[in-house]
Amino acid sequence: MTNGISRREAALLGGVLGGALMAEAAFAARPAHGADTRAEKIAMVLYPGMTALDLVGPLNAFSLMMGARIFLTAQTLSPVLADGGLALVPTHTFDQTPDDLDMLFVPGAGPAVADAMRDRALLQFLADRGAKARYVTSVCTGSLVLGAAGLLRGYRATSHWLVRDSVLPLLGATPVRARYVKDRNRITGAGVTSGIDFGLRVVAEFRGEDVARTIQLMAEYDPQPPYASGSPETARPRTVAEVRTIAKGLVAGADQAARAARPG
Amino acid sequence: MTNGISRREAALLGGVLGGALMAEAAFAARPAHGADTRAEKIAMVLYPGMTALDLVGPLNAFSLMMGARIFLTAQTLSPVLADGGLALVPTHTFDQTPDDLDMLFVPGAGPAVADAMRDRALLQFLADRGAKARYVTSVCTGSLVLGAAGLLRGYRATSHWLVRDSVLPLLGATPVRARYVKDRNRITGAGVTSGIDFGLRVVAEFRGEDVARTIQLMAEYDPQPPYASGSPETARPRTVAEVRTIAKGLVAGADQAARAARPG
Repeated sequence: MTNGISRREAALLGGVLGGALMAEAAFAARPAHGADTRAEKIAMVLYPGMTALDLVGPLNAFSLMMGARIFLTAQTLSPVLADGGLALVPTHTFDQTPDDLDMLFVPGAGPAVADAMRDRALLQFLADRGAKARYVTSVCTGSLVLGAAGLLRGYRATSHWLVRDSVLPLLGATPVRARYVKDRNRITGAGVTSGIDFGLRVVAEFRGEDVARTIQLMAEYDPQPPYASGSPETARPRTVAEVRTIAKGLVAGADQAARAARPG
Repeated sequence: MTNGISRREAALLGGVLGGALMAEAAFAARPAHGADTRAEKIAMVLYPGMTALDLVGPLNAFSLMMGARIFLTAQTLSPVLADGGLALVPTHTFDQTPDDLDMLFVPGAGPAVADAMRDRALLQFLADRGAKARYVTSVCTGSLVLGAAGLLRGYRATSHWLVRDSVLPLLGATPVRARYVKDRNRITGAGVTSGIDFGLRVVAEFRGEDVARTIQLMAEYDPQPPYASGSPETARPRTVAEVRTIAKGLVAGADQAARAARPG
């Protein structure tokens, strides 16, 4: 690794900022968490057009797992433009990302997911690290990218409701309507905001329920959605129709990419 | 503005990526949203040590408000290191940010909030734009930064539960225990994850309930928190005690900074 990377990594691991410092100072000092000074290696993939919230929801929880090493990994170290005009800076390239990951994570995207499902460098990286990782995980349409890399064949999985039942089967997965699906070492979350529920459950997998409860309280995760409009089952029919119209391109693109990704 | 900025802005406004494209393509074409082609100017401030989720939660909703212009603004255009090792790239400097904002937004931070509460350039920018903005808003400890800039004197407001009742009054604000507090043109959210609830409510303020419902369904915001641990009222006493221990430095630092920020 270059010096530049080492410095970034040092800053990351040193926990000089935000929650990292809080967690470091306190978890480290407390006997109850004496057994938690593990160093899980978590790789979270960045790619153009990704939905920032898919990544940042779980990252908020993982960053409070004291000692965990988070690799924000992309094909190059150039900033990656996500939705909302927000560019995110990778900390590692695919090549610089360890072989023996405890968790591989892929966020979803809007229409850009079709490009990700055809991105050879990305799919090769996922197939390679996914074959060896302790957990292979995603939020939202990230499961379609995992599927395009061949990592969900024969697994139960979920995704954004717009593509779950139609596109996942094309990739060899069995769709499940749930906020969070765990099948052996595959863990997939539903659309966008499910990443927060997903993140806390993953923390519980790695560090136990007490740590997950602590992180939930630090994030003040006491949701009060303004409307009953979070799923097609609860939303008004015209809202569902509106979203289907808006997302027509996304769904068609993902469908095509999934058909192209099918084994020979 | 320089060419570099114009190009970024063009990319942003062109909506070439993710949700922006979905919203652009569909909202623009639909008569029901013909009246929604407004161009609200929304400035979201970035500063070192900020909590990424405080910003990305509401940004997810705002980025789907077709036509809205989002300024991710910081003192310089250098990437800003947030929590979790994630660096975010500003699109505009404070100087490049318009005078006539429809909304000024400030995210919170962990221990770094005390530095933000003493950052003259940041506070000057907030005081200046906040005096003219249509709405002045925050999530989590961002309300303490607004308060340090003198923008919450005489207003009811909320913040992260750890500092709400103790620190807000030092800044002249009346603390309110709520997920979301609106007092005249000040809108403040509670801790971290409240930003998603906040974001949808702000969309409703600007564009009406139908658009907010549509965005809630696109974000599949149907939360299923794993534990009853999202507020000090519902969490186990030992979890509350643990978070208070972890956050001792944050609370003390914010308290000191608020006392230093008090008028004369």
